[in-house]
Amino acid sequence: MGSLHGGTALLEWTEVVGSGNVITDEASLHAAETGTFATQQRIPAIVRPGSREEVQACMRIANRCSVAVYPISSGKNWGYGSRVPASDGCVLMDLGRMNRILDFSEELAYVTVEPGVTQAQLYAFLQERGSGLCMDATGASPGCSLIGNTVERGFGHTPYGDHFAHSCGLEVVLPGGDVIETGFGRFSGAHTAPTYRWGVGPTLDGLFSQSNLGIVTRMTIWLMPAPEYFQAYYFRCEQSDGLAGLIDSLRPLRLNGTIRSASHIANDYKVISALQQYPWQETGGQTPLTPEHMVRFRRELKIGHWNGSGALYGTKRQVQEARRLLRQALKGKAQRLQFMDDRMLQLAGRFAKPYQMVSGWNLERTLAVLKPVYGLMRGIPTDHPLESTYWRKRTPIPTNMDPDRDGCGLLWCSPVAPNDGKHAERLTTMASALVLSHGFEPAISLTVITDRSLACIISIAYDRSQEGEDGRAMACYRELLEKATSLGYPSYRLSVASMSEMEQSGTYGALLSTLKQTLDPVAVLSPGRYIASLSK
Amino acid sequence: MGSLHGGTALLEWTEVVGSGNVITDEASLHAAETGTFATQQRIPAIVRPGSREEVQACMRIANRCSVAVYPISSGKNWGYGSRVPASDGCVLMDLGRMNRILDFSEELAYVTVEPGVTQAQLYAFLQERGSGLCMDATGASPGCSLIGNTVERGFGHTPYGDHFAHSCGLEVVLPGGDVIETGFGRFSGAHTAPTYRWGVGPTLDGLFSQSNLGIVTRMTIWLMPAPEYFQAYYFRCEQSDGLAGLIDSLRPLRLNGTIRSASHIANDYKVISALQQYPWQETGGQTPLTPEHMVRFRRELKIGHWNGSGALYGTKRQVQEARRLLRQALKGKAQRLQFMDDRMLQLAGRFAKPYQMVSGWNLERTLAVLKPVYGLMRGIPTDHPLESTYWRKRTPIPTNMDPDRDGCGLLWCSPVAPNDGKHAERLTTMASALVLSHGFEPAISLTVITDRSLACIISIAYDRSQEGEDGRAMACYRELLEKATSLGYPSYRLSVASMSEMEQSGTYGALLSTLKQTLDPVAVLSPGRYIASLSK
Repeated sequence: MGSLHGGTALLEWTEVVGSGNVITDEASLHAAETGTFATQQRIPAIVRPGSREEVQACMRIANRCSVAVYPISSGKNWGYGSRVPASDGCVLMDLGRMNRILDFSEELAYVTVEPGVTQAQLYAFLQERGSGLCMDATGASPGCSLIGNTVERGFGHTPYGDHFAHSCGLEVVLPGGDVIETGFGRFSGAHTAPTYRWGVGPTLDGLFSQSNLGIVTRMTIWLMPAPEYFQAYYFRCEQSDGLAGLIDSLRPLRLNGTIRSASHIANDYKVISALQQYPWQETGGQTPLTPEHMVRFRRELKIGHWNGSGALYGTKRQVQEARRLLRQALKGKAQRLQFMDDRMLQLAGRFAKPYQMVSGWNLERTLAVLKPVYGLMRGIPTDHPLESTYWRKRTPIPTNMDPDRDGCGLLWCSPVAPNDGKHAERLTTMASALVLSHGFEPAISLTVITDRSLACIISIAYDRSQEGEDGRAMACYRELLEKATSLGYPSYRLSVASMSEMEQSGTYGALLSTLKQTLDPVAVLSPGRYIASLSK
Repeated sequence: MGSLHGGTALLEWTEVVGSGNVITDEASLHAAETGTFATQQRIPAIVRPGSREEVQACMRIANRCSVAVYPISSGKNWGYGSRVPASDGCVLMDLGRMNRILDFSEELAYVTVEPGVTQAQLYAFLQERGSGLCMDATGASPGCSLIGNTVERGFGHTPYGDHFAHSCGLEVVLPGGDVIETGFGRFSGAHTAPTYRWGVGPTLDGLFSQSNLGIVTRMTIWLMPAPEYFQAYYFRCEQSDGLAGLIDSLRPLRLNGTIRSASHIANDYKVISALQQYPWQETGGQTPLTPEHMVRFRRELKIGHWNGSGALYGTKRQVQEARRLLRQALKGKAQRLQFMDDRMLQLAGRFAKPYQMVSGWNLERTLAVLKPVYGLMRGIPTDHPLESTYWRKRTPIPTNMDPDRDGCGLLWCSPVAPNDGKHAERLTTMASALVLSHGFEPAISLTVITDRSLACIISIAYDRSQEGEDGRAMACYRELLEKATSLGYPSYRLSVASMSEMEQSGTYGALLSTLKQTLDPVAVLSPGRYIASLSK
């Protein structure tokens, strides 16, 4: 931020949002500049508008003063950059104060929210009302913004797992400060603004997701009716080469609507890192985990090379029939297909101790993992998955987790593959070998994010306080992203460290840059975020 | 078309597409200028490119010569304008020659097509292969283009009824002649181009639907696995005020996934006009049909004020359970809930004659309607719904139907309402009274196009050869469109007669115009189609 104009902007913003909402103290700025991997971007100030009108006013000031701003909703963009802007010198616009739930319909099953509304807040809202609806939750922690996650096209595990596909009716502040509503919202009094996605004429929602073309200040999110009966299923596959068989036998059930949820397959590394921290003691400090360690862990924890979970929603009879079809499909492909409902979960909790005495299996440890996954499949937010960001830390996991503050290293690479066994096999084999060769554990999950696609999340978890690890992890991430893309599996989402490297050449890149140039001629909104500026 | 530049363009286009594909004879032009309602737009020529490269070359010529072109796929945009451009003087670009099926996957259930590929062609393709997949079909006739209907966001009746929601991977020729691919298609060799909709970075598909920002020259369309078992259901409601109850009792079943198809409720006028032409004899030529006529018709044809249909897809047990839930939901709301599968349909056909002798009910006539609807719910294209465009004609329906040629008057108004009884009631009550007051029969259907929305199609069918009817029908249409919008039910789609009247003011209209101006500075692509040009 050029000091002259920047100073003017700060003064003007202060007039708009109040001095308490323009933050320039070193500690706060430093915290906001810190993510779960190395970044160089500096943040000169944080501005916290409290309403859409204030966002508009702030953008007009930004344009007048040529100061770039970078909006975040909750900033819980773990593994992709947390609160850190894509370019250096952006003022952080924190939308967390805009946390109103503006509209809700029990009958039509939707809620309309501002960017500061978190998963926990919506969950509490529904509980308080005794609503018969549930939300989809990501594992990204209860404090994660609904809008933030949805515009980034994040996902969860229920039938509404593809968040962006279950949203509509965006209110967007354009870079210049004007405001529009997408879909039917632009027609005053339209009853279908929160129910029908496309509106009439071109549909603009997509322009404002994963982009820097506007600030989403309101969104309608669709909710699911809670099922009459819910049953989760878990299975494992003992064969390291069994993944393709699993994927191919589950696909028909997803395509024909028998499995409606975004089911999930995790490799052994992923499950272990969800259950505990790195076994520094047993390994004598050696990294990464060796094949021999893995054999022992799989045996001890009763997990497979691949470990699946998902859920069935419906009447008792619908679930019963789905269970029959699932059993049939997984026969010979998976071992230990188990089903769990509320009653069983309660019982298992009660009898974990005696069970362990008889079987030697630490059911409590397994339940500790199953329960949050079980909850996620019912749309209950949890911060349990956040624990795995402490995987390589040598200090215990604190109660009040904050991966940014605690030097947890985390890079998420998220290539998409067709929902097809051979592709899943090819991608995960490459990723495992590559991540191991860089000295990290390849924790991999595959989520059936849509009928035809798998979101493959490869976590590179490390300890930022270890000398050189930041650099080694980033090198691993970059090689992985490039290799996956060149094999035909580009990622559904990018980190602030990789946005500038995304293929932006050719007519597509030119089109994006032209749109950017047209809507944001002064380049004040999130420069470098998914869209490169026109090369001059 | 300015004659000088226009002439140059024609010469240059001829070099690109060959003289046989530049059409300027009066008869052809006149036919293309003729839709199912009055239009004034003249078409100076028709150009028929045979490939994407030819489309690009044609657009470059159009820009150089400042000549506007208006692309159509099959031009079967019945009720909304057929082949007639939104503005006067556009050269028609007929993409019908581009009719290749470019890619197909039985496992991942998709097909990639060019704009000339028709519903009938895809259906035959799947049949020939003995594919286990089905398509969704609209009632708009077998010759209707898949891409044309999808970019207009048309719909059918299966679980894939919302066509645009089940497509991805667009190849688009921009107004200037450059070409882009949406989604992951821009990454060379991406396996997920046909399977994952959003890609990475902003999602642009929506920009190119219902717009004039690009020409879609390729699209992937997702296909459904044929169900193990299929059962259609039909019901009727004898109470004129029973609609709200029907809608509200079906909604939960749609929201919870029990009913996955786009089920359909038609009023008595709609069913009658599907079964026969206007009863000129019985009414002594009087229009519109009186309440007394309607009482008699409903009795004779065994139909209700409201008549529903839908289908259940799954294993026998899944369908059985859905049937139980449907029965429960419709209890006291609907009469004569009946189920039909392949075997029953065969039997009914065989015994229609004896059945009539016993019961007096002309089952054959009912079957004549049920069968095409039954087929549509299995994704089998039909031209049966086209017969209703001859409703008010005094001549019999020809074998080779062509509503444009035959002077069939048809205007479709298509407001969307929330999937909620009181809204459905309010909208249809208004529409019925308004259409009747203009002297036409209000043939209305409501389709549960998404979980939360009803597409309400109100047909104004008339005889263009009757003096003054064109004007009276258009007045009715305009009043209806305006009234529906002002009540809060804007339409999901517009006719070429109404695009220019759509609300384009305010920041939203300005944004659209800016996008148009940026992507098509010479305004050569479909001027006036959904997006107004910048006022100068």
